[in-house]
Amino acid sequence: MTIFSKIIAGEIPSYKIAENDKFYAFLDIFPLMEGHTLVIPKIEVDKIFDLDDETIAAFIVFAKKIGKAIEKAFDCNRCGINVVGLEVPHAHIHLIPINQPSDMNIANPKLKLTEQEFKAIQQKIIDAL
Amino acid sequence: MTIFSKIIAGEIPSYKIAENDKFYAFLDIFPLMEGHTLVIPKIEVDKIFDLDDETIAAFIVFAKKIGKAIEKAFDCNRCGINVVGLEVPHAHIHLIPINQPSDMNIANPKLKLTEQEFKAIQQKIIDAL
Repeated sequence: MTIFSKIIAGEIPSYKIAENDKFYAFLDIFPLMEGHTLVIPKIEVDKIFDLDDETIAAFIVFAKKIGKAIEKAFDCNRCGINVVGLEVPHAHIHLIPINQPSDMNIANPKLKLTEQEFKAIQQKIIDAL
Repeated sequence: MTIFSKIIAGEIPSYKIAENDKFYAFLDIFPLMEGHTLVIPKIEVDKIFDLDDETIAAFIVFAKKIGKAIEKAFDCNRCGINVVGLEVPHAHIHLIPINQPSDMNIANPKLKLTEQEFKAIQQKIIDAL
């Protein structure tokens, strides 16, 4: 069971943004920017391109809804997308509000936020959905 | 008319990988890694999340086909995805073969390849499609 499956199952707590029968979105706890969100399929697949066509299509449509909410909720030019996936063998899309390309640089130091700050960010995105 | 629309129209040459009625894939001429490919919709939309659901779904399914070919063609762990989009106001997906997260660092220096090298890379991906 991947760490993401444990998050979906509620065994590991997360700042949940949205969920349906196939996908789950929650705040990245090592955010590059405020609002940095992870979107994952409930099915455990390592590489995103190993999802079947129907699932990957539904995945990006689900991610789009979250991305549009992030674009509304934060003072950003747009929501960037990053899929790396080498750390956790469970496909995941990073949604990151950006104002300049370097905001998405995965080598940047991660923000340190308090629980209160995470909760405020979570609420902002949920309100924009 | 964006620079990408000029590429689609053939007014600017490109190392084309694949094309259908809605999408176009070609090598990034400022590649982070050999095989770095751009996938774009033929419709001119600035932000990827402004594509309608049907189009963004078809877009990722088209990109997946290219991504699977890249994974086959190159000695890489997988094909990463990056959507930044602040430089050209025409939505585009970066597909980048990676072995470690830092391979996708958009601040990395770009590879300088000869025309011959680009053509060999182009052929490798086309052969893997």
